[in-house]
Amino acid sequence: MGTNRLEAFSDGMMAIFITIMVLEFKVPEGSSAKDLLPLVPKVMSYVLSFIYVGIYWNNHHHLFHTVKEVSGAILWTNLHFLFWLSLIPFTTAWMGENHFTPLPTALYGLVLLMCAVAWGVMQWAIIRKQGANSLLKKAIGRDLKGNISAVLYVVAIASAFRMPVLSAGIYAVVAMIWLVPDRRFERVLKESGKAE
Amino acid sequence: MGTNRLEAFSDGMMAIFITIMVLEFKVPEGSSAKDLLPLVPKVMSYVLSFIYVGIYWNNHHHLFHTVKEVSGAILWTNLHFLFWLSLIPFTTAWMGENHFTPLPTALYGLVLLMCAVAWGVMQWAIIRKQGANSLLKKAIGRDLKGNISAVLYVVAIASAFRMPVLSAGIYAVVAMIWLVPDRRFERVLKESGKAE
Amino acid sequence: MGTNRLEAFSDGMMAIFITIMVLEFKVPEGSSAKDLLPLVPKVMSYVLSFIYVGIYWNNHHHLFHTVKEVSGAILWTNLHFLFWLSLIPFTTAWMGENHFTPLPTALYGLVLLMCAVAWGVMQWAIIRKQGANSLLKKAIGRDLKGNISAVLYVVAIASAFRMPVLSAGIYAVVAMIWLVPDRRFERVLKESGKAE
Amino acid sequence: MGTNRLEAFSDGMMAIFITIMVLEFKVPEGSSAKDLLPLVPKVMSYVLSFIYVGIYWNNHHHLFHTVKEVSGAILWTNLHFLFWLSLIPFTTAWMGENHFTPLPTALYGLVLLMCAVAWGVMQWAIIRKQGANSLLKKAIGRDLKGNISAVLYVVAIASAFRMPVLSAGIYAVVAMIWLVPDRRFERVLKESGKAE
Repeated sequence: MGTNRLEAFSDGMMAIFITIMVLEFKVPEGSSAKDLLPLVPKVMSYVLSFIYVGIYWNNHHHLFHTVKEVSGAILWTNLHFLFWLSLIPFTTAWMGENHFTPLPTALYGLVLLMCAVAWGVMQWAIIRKQGANSLLKKAIGRDLKGNISAVLYVVAIASAFRMPVLSAGIYAVVAMIWLVPDRRFERVLKESGKAE
Repeated sequence: MGTNRLEAFSDGMMAIFITIMVLEFKVPEGSSAKDLLPLVPKVMSYVLSFIYVGIYWNNHHHLFHTVKEVSGAILWTNLHFLFWLSLIPFTTAWMGENHFTPLPTALYGLVLLMCAVAWGVMQWAIIRKQGANSLLKKAIGRDLKGNISAVLYVVAIASAFRMPVLSAGIYAVVAMIWLVPDRRFERVLKESGKAE
Repeated sequence: MGTNRLEAFSDGMMAIFITIMVLEFKVPEGSSAKDLLPLVPKVMSYVLSFIYVGIYWNNHHHLFHTVKEVSGAILWTNLHFLFWLSLIPFTTAWMGENHFTPLPTALYGLVLLMCAVAWGVMQWAIIRKQGANSLLKKAIGRDLKGNISAVLYVVAIASAFRMPVLSAGIYAVVAMIWLVPDRRFERVLKESGKAE
Repeated sequence: MGTNRLEAFSDGMMAIFITIMVLEFKVPEGSSAKDLLPLVPKVMSYVLSFIYVGIYWNNHHHLFHTVKEVSGAILWTNLHFLFWLSLIPFTTAWMGENHFTPLPTALYGLVLLMCAVAWGVMQWAIIRKQGANSLLKKAIGRDLKGNISAVLYVVAIASAFRMPVLSAGIYAVVAMIWLVPDRRFERVLKESGKAE
């Protein structure tokens, strides 16, 4: 079994997650600038979540470039990852609606953490399927970025109850880490000569 | 006619069914833990339905691996199956909103039963098109899993009016039955040498 | 330019139109049978519209089997068709919400009529692009089904102001006409030896 | 890396943007003609936005015909473009809800302007990747249409605070400019002999 349908289904879901967040911008009844003000924190959390889903889509794209054949475990770990990602629109709206108060900010981080964990589980399923010469294993190495992100999420969740602004800052920093171009996949794919 | 467009259309619909369910999580106005509490039964029914749609997507994937050419009957029995699946977000929300009371729990089971029946009809249309040496027929055999599921759904619907908790338990058990990896398709496809 | 992206985009939109209609089933607050009753006319109009969108998806599938190359006119007449189709969730909800009263029932028919007209315009753009030996022209001939449907829609719109029930019946009859398998495309495609 | 997944993801998002706008047509409670009246400005702004998203989908289709290989910069400038496009359903609803009052009309134009800017950035990323003999560079030349549109958007945003009707007219004019068939891509692609 190839990866076509898995990729198309995941793309569809990620596209919908992004657009569902836009639905949370309730259209204000008035048409003055002050009617727009309450939307500012919502737009900020939308921008953050858009970037996160964008990063995941990008990484998903790269990840499945190393995969030629799909197993049952890969299908289900991918669905498990999408489950956690599907909660992002809710946590985004709750955090935005409540202007970065403690609990919503912590929950936002918890869902990000679970997405990262689910991503790790999916990587593990792919590596296991690929066996000893796993392309993916070569590409991610010790997965420093993944591990640092997880630690930062935990710090942010803990700090949310004292300083939610700091947590929001940490979420932004983690996004930055991933936005920096990641050459690992391109290098390894080039070496192995796998073209799409 | 190939199966590409049918698969893409079905994938799109299944991806949307899942995400529509998330829209039912109304964002609470407050930001304390007790504001989240009413969401617990909704999340529970979402998890259950996510797994069901995931299983169907997975099985759809396997099913159409045995199909090379699509007929009008296959197109329409597939749409008929998607119709029943499209009602899952509604029954999920109703059951979650009402904390597993009798009628919503029974209706949830009825829609699952109709999905299973519609799936059986679609299998029949595929087998009929494939003729005497139907790959699918070999793969499903007497379709024990499908038949047991249907019986369990009927039991759960009946028990919903006395013990809706038992019904919810039965729905979870049926999901477990299907989550266990199904080797039938892989075996038969391998034997017939059909690669994607 | 091939037809891949046009087909995928149209499939995505049609899948969303169907699922948007489900969002209109407001989840009842109570959990008794009488809480479900107000949903009956909504479900009825949903079933009707599901069948209509299903028929159009099916026909779109067949139509673009005759098309090898896409022109600007085909792209835009397809978008124009999707515009009218995009109004179906609204007219479906309005008709269902108001239990088949005159104006909503007439508007429902008007949008169906415009979809049919837009479909005809798209067929014309395809035939014009295909030139003298147009496969599509051979397949549809005088397009009896399309013309009869348009006449029936006009009758139904007119009758909606006196007997909306009759209009609803006519919409169902037109759907039946299209559900009957259409051999025209299969025959012509077979003759021309075009395989997917 | 090919352009398949990028195109499919973008198509999915654009299809959803269009359909989200339809969700803003709140179904009226009554069923008389005067219940429909408040929808008229909403439908007008929907038609305008449908045409804009349609134009962008069309141009996206053409643009990526010149692209054979995707870089990280192309992936991210495309996501950046989709971000601005994702705000169109909100500005459309706000402008329609408020009957073309100054601020909503100006914001509508601002988002259109940002879409155009993001589009320009994406073109620049593609041209940079394609190098000296960039097909895209040949196709767009000095990009007169893109530059005129940007100027017109700025004029429309400024005029919104005095004469929002004029702004709406300018938005319609810009759409017209793009609806006129654009032969640049077809010509350049033909010359370079690139077939899909």
